[in-house]
Amino acid sequence: MHQVTCVVHGGAGHWPDEEQEQALEECLAAVRAGWHVLQSGGDAVAAVVAAVVVLEDSPLFNAGVGSVPTEEGHVEMDAAVMEGKELKAGAVALVRSVRNPVRLALEVLKLGQEVMLAGEAAERWARAVGLATVSEEELIRAAVRRPTPPERIGGTVGAVAVDVHGNVAAATSTGGRRGKRSGRIGDSPVIGAGTYADNRGGAASATGDGEAILRFGLGRYAVSQLERGLSPAIAGGMALAEISRRLVGEAGLILVDRFGRFGIAHNTRSMPVAWLRSGCSRPEASICSIPEGRGPARLFVRGMD
Amino acid sequence: MHQVTCVVHGGAGHWPDEEQEQALEECLAAVRAGWHVLQSGGDAVAAVVAAVVVLEDSPLFNAGVGSVPTEEGHVEMDAAVMEGKELKAGAVALVRSVRNPVRLALEVLKLGQEVMLAGEAAERWARAVGLATVSEEELIRAAVRRPTPPERIGGTVGAVAVDVHGNVAAATSTGGRRGKRSGRIGDSPVIGAGTYADNRGGAASATGDGEAILRFGLGRYAVSQLERGLSPAIAGGMALAEISRRLVGEAGLILVDRFGRFGIAHNTRSMPVAWLRSGCSRPEASICSIPEGRGPARLFVRGMD
Repeated sequence: MHQVTCVVHGGAGHWPDEEQEQALEECLAAVRAGWHVLQSGGDAVAAVVAAVVVLEDSPLFNAGVGSVPTEEGHVEMDAAVMEGKELKAGAVALVRSVRNPVRLALEVLKLGQEVMLAGEAAERWARAVGLATVSEEELIRAAVRRPTPPERIGGTVGAVAVDVHGNVAAATSTGGRRGKRSGRIGDSPVIGAGTYADNRGGAASATGDGEAILRFGLGRYAVSQLERGLSPAIAGGMALAEISRRLVGEAGLILVDRFGRFGIAHNTRSMPVAWLRSGCSRPEASICSIPEGRGPARLFVRGMD
Repeated sequence: MHQVTCVVHGGAGHWPDEEQEQALEECLAAVRAGWHVLQSGGDAVAAVVAAVVVLEDSPLFNAGVGSVPTEEGHVEMDAAVMEGKELKAGAVALVRSVRNPVRLALEVLKLGQEVMLAGEAAERWARAVGLATVSEEELIRAAVRRPTPPERIGGTVGAVAVDVHGNVAAATSTGGRRGKRSGRIGDSPVIGAGTYADNRGGAASATGDGEAILRFGLGRYAVSQLERGLSPAIAGGMALAEISRRLVGEAGLILVDRFGRFGIAHNTRSMPVAWLRSGCSRPEASICSIPEGRGPARLFVRGMD
């Protein structure tokens, strides 16, 4: 037997006190959206996409309408979704005018031909399937209106889920690093880096220093640890300890395994998360702050087995 | 003690008899170019790039000047390079006017900021660092002039090496699938899929059905098997058996571990390869053809321990 589970994150980084309450509320709304899909008999892929759409639609997070601008003042969004039964995956990169890039990633997955589409070609496919668009001006206005605290990195969003059939899925969406070079693709849309799912292990969505996550292959590594039978909290902690030891980089990770166990890990000061699992009466949310200052490297880990 | 080693491949697929001799000659030339770098005390990264440049410059392979066109008649090239000491990586996607995309991937690695750059932004960087350009018309003329046999898939090129310091590296370059949708990014430039390197295990360059390789994370998986201590031939065979069991897809793989052992594996009819290792008097090349017809799934594996 397994438990139906949905977990979301709103990005590893440093969340100022005045934004934390709202971030948690939005994460709760996202997990409820995913949960609604799962309770209606929907599959894990549909659930993680529904959850991520809620976070993309919030200007608080660095994804969808809240995406931060590139060095040239454009918005270039990346997203991916993957399911663990048949390893189907869809990813889009450098998208400028699609309201919900994660929905476009889902369309790429459903199309079943390419795994990764970038730029104008991805936007053409969005128009072909009738996805909602947003003008780049609107995105940039939203980005400029909200002066993100410079110390807040990340803000990438993601979700993982296990459905009633025991299938797992993961989705991730981001506007990328603030002031990034135009054309830069980070870890979020890279299958095996920011996003990975395999029923043999579980599903993972990562956030943080994209280049380090890409070079290490964090998502795939974490799911491999689940495949060994480690609990998601231990696997997440191990994966972050390992990436920290090999590479400089701040990162966070949510993980679910095929039994519905889940884990949350980050080495950044904070990361807003929310979760709901069959048997629990209501969703819970948390935004742990790791103390600042010198001392041993800090790593926050939690989970439910 | 380890051995200095260089191995190259010219793409998993079906090579017609009349092209096999030339493919082997070009692979030998490529391995000599890589070897020359290694013998001059150059590092593994420089060696794999030098080897891949030779194959990009040959119209016979689906990379560089031999790249096949997209469905819209454009050329969109992808390439990546990674080294295993510090896990530094550079990748470029959807490049249209750079003569040697693998050189551009090396420039991205050296820049040390982004890991993956796509499209016009990648081309701008190529111009900024003064890389040789080629007009798209020239590339398309070359592609059209050479009517690739329809049964030949792949033609992607790659190299792996171990240098005198025991550091490993891998590089891969491709024009992608013939008639691909514009904007499609395959496995070659995706760190962990078509290209991966980590001194703890070794280095891998893959070729074949890009979407399957991406979804499975073939490069990272194979290097993980090396980290367990398996010999590269066994690790390559295991990785291909596993991807074949999970996903439909034809693929090939070259692998080198930190001891200078190497492995070659493919489940396609043929894949031209060449190799040279310290202690050997001259480079060798091979293009094995797996028999056609019904029967058990065929897998070609060879290597030197």
